[in-house]
Amino acid sequence: MQNAMCMTMTLTLLAAGSLTPAQAREDKPLPPRPTVADVVKGAPASDWRALDPDNTLYLQTAAGRVVIELAPGFAPMHVANIKALAREHYFDGLAVIRSQDNYVVQWGDADEKNPKPVKTAKSALAAEFTIPVKNDKGFTRLAERDVYAAQVGHSNGFPVARDPKAGVAWMAHCYGVVGVGRDSDAGSGSGTSLYAVNGHAPRHLDRNITMVGRVVSGMPLLSTLPRGTGPLGFYEKPEQATPILAVSIAADVPEAERSKLEVMRTDSASFQAVINAQRNRGGPWTKYAPGHVELCNVTIPVREQK
Amino acid sequence: MQNAMCMTMTLTLLAAGSLTPAQAREDKPLPPRPTVADVVKGAPASDWRALDPDNTLYLQTAAGRVVIELAPGFAPMHVANIKALAREHYFDGLAVIRSQDNYVVQWGDADEKNPKPVKTAKSALAAEFTIPVKNDKGFTRLAERDVYAAQVGHSNGFPVARDPKAGVAWMAHCYGVVGVGRDSDAGSGSGTSLYAVNGHAPRHLDRNITMVGRVVSGMPLLSTLPRGTGPLGFYEKPEQATPILAVSIAADVPEAERSKLEVMRTDSASFQAVINAQRNRGGPWTKYAPGHVELCNVTIPVREQK
Repeated sequence: MQNAMCMTMTLTLLAAGSLTPAQAREDKPLPPRPTVADVVKGAPASDWRALDPDNTLYLQTAAGRVVIELAPGFAPMHVANIKALAREHYFDGLAVIRSQDNYVVQWGDADEKNPKPVKTAKSALAAEFTIPVKNDKGFTRLAERDVYAAQVGHSNGFPVARDPKAGVAWMAHCYGVVGVGRDSDAGSGSGTSLYAVNGHAPRHLDRNITMVGRVVSGMPLLSTLPRGTGPLGFYEKPEQATPILAVSIAADVPEAERSKLEVMRTDSASFQAVINAQRNRGGPWTKYAPGHVELCNVTIPVREQK
Repeated sequence: MQNAMCMTMTLTLLAAGSLTPAQAREDKPLPPRPTVADVVKGAPASDWRALDPDNTLYLQTAAGRVVIELAPGFAPMHVANIKALAREHYFDGLAVIRSQDNYVVQWGDADEKNPKPVKTAKSALAAEFTIPVKNDKGFTRLAERDVYAAQVGHSNGFPVARDPKAGVAWMAHCYGVVGVGRDSDAGSGSGTSLYAVNGHAPRHLDRNITMVGRVVSGMPLLSTLPRGTGPLGFYEKPEQATPILAVSIAADVPEAERSKLEVMRTDSASFQAVINAQRNRGGPWTKYAPGHVELCNVTIPVREQK
């Protein structure tokens, strides 16, 4: 009956319309408009790009594979180091050690007393919290304002914020974005412990963390993990932690076993249509469309390669 | 070692400082400042209020109790109807029927063909998507701007957005907020199916849904549920759904079995200090403080009654 499927129309509307938000009323349904699903379906092949196997990380748990797109443009040293860690099998046999509700899920070495030795990779790196704006290639600005930054938008598939006065850009802490854990010293992280955002964007962490990528598939494997009962959601007992079977670079995995995913180009017309579809949803379900979308509410579409 | 506890300092800093955000630099640590935990610890008893048993809902699953504070000020008819549904044991034996990653978790009747009959409560109600601004009592405005609304803030423990031109206010779709599922018709919901936000605030649902409350305890019981594999995260098989043992009004539960919780008054000086602590975190962990906080990033503290 009505309620079991309530809200199902939010993402399944069809066709097009042109009412402005101010015209929306509960008693006067909005005309239908293209949905994100419509735009994704109609996007030409040229508006998609395959993941680069050299910059794709697979985190394997017993329940499945989490696929992370790495962002060397935002953190060249850390991405190189994480790849070195993966190649020396540093993460294999370690675990998800923290799951804090509405914040982050983190993986690495739970054993503080006898930490797993790092072999070929570096144990610490200079912080890469921001990059010069001139190095932020492919930035497409979002028209919307933002509470935390003067400018926001997307670069090469990643949500980005900018401070033009300081001349810097950084990846924003949206859902599924991956950062490098560290101690109080800005340069104490190296990629041996990583986390993904599992709740409302903790944007206060922006400019405080080296951001290295984004989960493009398998996020539920991380977001549904039981919350840790220790401070900050760390697990208190080793048996609570979810083992990491392996972390691999896609390029090192036989091609037949790779996840064949494509990300919509964020500098494409299709992506602008995705943004517009989220600013102005149409009827019959939607009664009011705000005409705006917040950075972390913008879907960055991912699909199976055709 | 460094990484296992990385980010642990974010919420555990002490003492006070006064650097402005612009002065923050990676190479020059921020001075310590009061944290949310500090403010909560120091808040006087007068800045807290106990939950009203008449407007507190307990959703019981085998794993524990979810406590929902109802908001009759925002949806008087729906809150009354949900209480009537609880008192006729409508929800008892139903289930969590939907868990969509980074969106909502929803409970109600999975059986569309043979829906559970409603006895004393109403099966449909006029929409209560917004209320007149004059009815929004106790509003404390947040200084920050917002992508979706002209004004945002808090009223009696709930995150609120306002459209002064239209003269309306509504509860914002922040993490843990509870809304009434409905079909395409604005008046098709009654409270027989409810949902809670389990990810980044889907603010485009604002003004499209009757909002009835907020989860104040037990959110992980809902947020960690396996994601449904059907469209929009609905479960495809009955055995995947988590049974609801009972939904009760706290006032109907023996006092000894009630959750003794207090919510910080959002019109108090302590709450302003909480907001400030989140705008400007101090060192040693934090290197950059934005000086702003977004509506749905503001913590509304809840504690066990002393």
